Amino acid sequence: MTDQQSKSVITKKEYYTPETPDNQLVLESGDVLQNLTIAYETYGTLSEKKDNAILITHAFSGDSHVAGFYEDDHAREKPGWWEFMVGPGKGIDTDKYFVICSNILGSCCGSTGPSSVNPATGEPYGLSFPMVTIGDMVKGQKKLVDHLGIKQLHAVIGGSVGGMQVLEWTVRYPEMIRAAIPIATTMRHSALAIAFNEVARQSIMADPNWNKGNYYNGKKPDLGLAIARMIGHVTYLSDEAMRRKFGRKLQGKEKFSFGFDVDFQVESYLHYQGSKFVQRFDANSLLYITKAADYFDLVDREQFTLQDLEEKSRGLIKFLVISFSSDWLYPTYQAKELVKALKRTGQNVSFCEFVADCGHDAFLIRDDRFSNILRGFIDGISR
Amino acid sequence: MTDQQSKSVITKKEYYTPETPDNQLVLESGDVLQNLTIAYETYGTLSEKKDNAILITHAFSGDSHVAGFYEDDHAREKPGWWEFMVGPGKGIDTDKYFVICSNILGSCCGSTGPSSVNPATGEPYGLSFPMVTIGDMVKGQKKLVDHLGIKQLHAVIGGSVGGMQVLEWTVRYPEMIRAAIPIATTMRHSALAIAFNEVARQSIMADPNWNKGNYYNGKKPDLGLAIARMIGHVTYLSDEAMRRKFGRKLQGKEKFSFGFDVDFQVESYLHYQGSKFVQRFDANSLLYITKAADYFDLVDREQFTLQDLEEKSRGLIKFLVISFSSDWLYPTYQAKELVKALKRTGQNVSFCEFVADCGHDAFLIRDDRFSNILRGFIDGISR
Repeated sequence: MTDQQSKSVITKKEYYTPETPDNQLVLESGDVLQNLTIAYETYGTLSEKKDNAILITHAFSGDSHVAGFYEDDHAREKPGWWEFMVGPGKGIDTDKYFVICSNILGSCCGSTGPSSVNPATGEPYGLSFPMVTIGDMVKGQKKLVDHLGIKQLHAVIGGSVGGMQVLEWTVRYPEMIRAAIPIATTMRHSALAIAFNEVARQSIMADPNWNKGNYYNGKKPDLGLAIARMIGHVTYLSDEAMRRKFGRKLQGKEKFSFGFDVDFQVESYLHYQGSKFVQRFDANSLLYITKAADYFDLVDREQFTLQDLEEKSRGLIKFLVISFSSDWLYPTYQAKELVKALKRTGQNVSFCEFVADCGHDAFLIRDDRFSNILRGFIDGISR
Repeated sequence: MTDQQSKSVITKKEYYTPETPDNQLVLESGDVLQNLTIAYETYGTLSEKKDNAILITHAFSGDSHVAGFYEDDHAREKPGWWEFMVGPGKGIDTDKYFVICSNILGSCCGSTGPSSVNPATGEPYGLSFPMVTIGDMVKGQKKLVDHLGIKQLHAVIGGSVGGMQVLEWTVRYPEMIRAAIPIATTMRHSALAIAFNEVARQSIMADPNWNKGNYYNGKKPDLGLAIARMIGHVTYLSDEAMRRKFGRKLQGKEKFSFGFDVDFQVESYLHYQGSKFVQRFDANSLLYITKAADYFDLVDREQFTLQDLEEKSRGLIKFLVISFSSDWLYPTYQAKELVKALKRTGQNVSFCEFVADCGHDAFLIRDDRFSNILRGFIDGISR
């Protein structure tokens, strides 16, 4: 057992299915989602006062398995997606805090999504699944937090699409959170980010196996989903990281093939990421979650905007906004816009930009500076 | 007739098919391309001394129709792709210079490419077309210039993949050019640029209509090609340009659709670009030309490198390297690397970065500063 593994927790996936009528969720679109189930995992111990809970919100393709190992993962080879950050003595310290991470609605990792069975038909929803927004995902998380008997969260923390959920929490339930750490995210999805998402969606919908979302009993749109993931991975890296990692290195050969097989390592990397992804993710879930991200806009909408946070929160939330210098999907200038908008509402805002060449993915890559900043901020929230 | 049109030339596409054995081209891969044809257009008048010729090399999806109108285009609605730059009194002045633009090998606009008929089979080549590199394209152009009786070009000018051809000219035939203007380009294709090209290629090859490149008698891989073009267009713009042009504006509606049709203007723009492209471009040509760009590397190869330009050119070529501040496909730092590398070989190098928010596409967008700089530089070449 390595030192790293000894600092890991053992976890299991749990499912929360509210009783009728709480198992319904009225969505932003006006539709109603029936038979709501939320998959989640918890880490550490909830204090008697139930005042040490931290909710971690995951990114687009993440799940509830934020850290540690499942009991039946005897090889201890697949830790959670934020293993370096969450655990005993780590940046988000499970010796002190009760950590909750739930799978977002619309996903395919335990919570209700387009691959779930529609109770009305007995078949998977496919495109008959209603559109869920970031706000709807957060409303689902709120039900879980209520169910756990927690009146106020010590903090809500998440990166990328998870950061959007963090911000959504602050405008919807400001009284329920003491602190918010939105990481590598934005308060409104940009045209560039929408453009990449739309190309990814089109690549799935162009795959004949997609079949208008109705593929659960047949061949899956693996080719389209793999291309969508390749597009995603280009945006998660950066020019600098790609130069450093791959440059123009050839993959397993010394000369060009003068054909259309893989020549360069960067091509091989993208193929690998694409083929790995189709084994674990549902193409329709990608469609739904990217659309939720595209719709995300905390400035220009009818309610729950950043602008009316002032009145609602009375400045009680402590914010730590984090960006990474080479993230071109949610660049630092967008984090700064968020900081300004929050300050205008009288919030208590700290901001930190990490100089890192890893692009958007930086928040998922071990960095002790990052862990230390989070630990310090989290411990200081109650002071 | 508008003022703009009065400054346009009337042009026609011509075809050069060398006599045997000159109609063969030994390619960098070692293969031999038979039955070479090069489509080209000329503008202005070749001087008696044949010393006023400028060769313009086009970008990946361009063609020989660099400016003006075809005689049968009575509506005068489709000028050439660099109309603002090339014509009487313009930046590249056809009153003074004899301008040549030829379609690159591997393309589908008149020169030999994968959609051409393979003389050995009587059928379109498809993937049996041999791989052509940027060097091979330039060797084809050299044949055309020889055919026109021109011993030395006043200048070679081109942007993007056209800029790669400009640089290739300088290392292969330094004695044949007085000046070179590589624009919005690079001396070696980066991992990021390769990554985007590979995703575009994969989106074509994932389309079942692609049929391993053999689709000329059936349905074409239009869906895959459209997605490839959408990917391209995201990289041709910039974050800034997208914010300014599209922001989060909705397309023909006031509220979200909460579905997977077009919501945002940026999506509509990409769909339009994709569907327009499939009407004029061949999917296999995209595969070949992107691969040629990916292979392009003037530093790390066996011959015709920038490093040995010193000995070959004896500093006789005047360079003007141009970049655009928001071009993230071939960023300014890569133009500066090129400038440094050229200076190390003793060349006469000028460098100009235009501050422009239009991304890589900037070199195709009318800008009087750009035209004036080119005019001044070109007129000064012989001084």
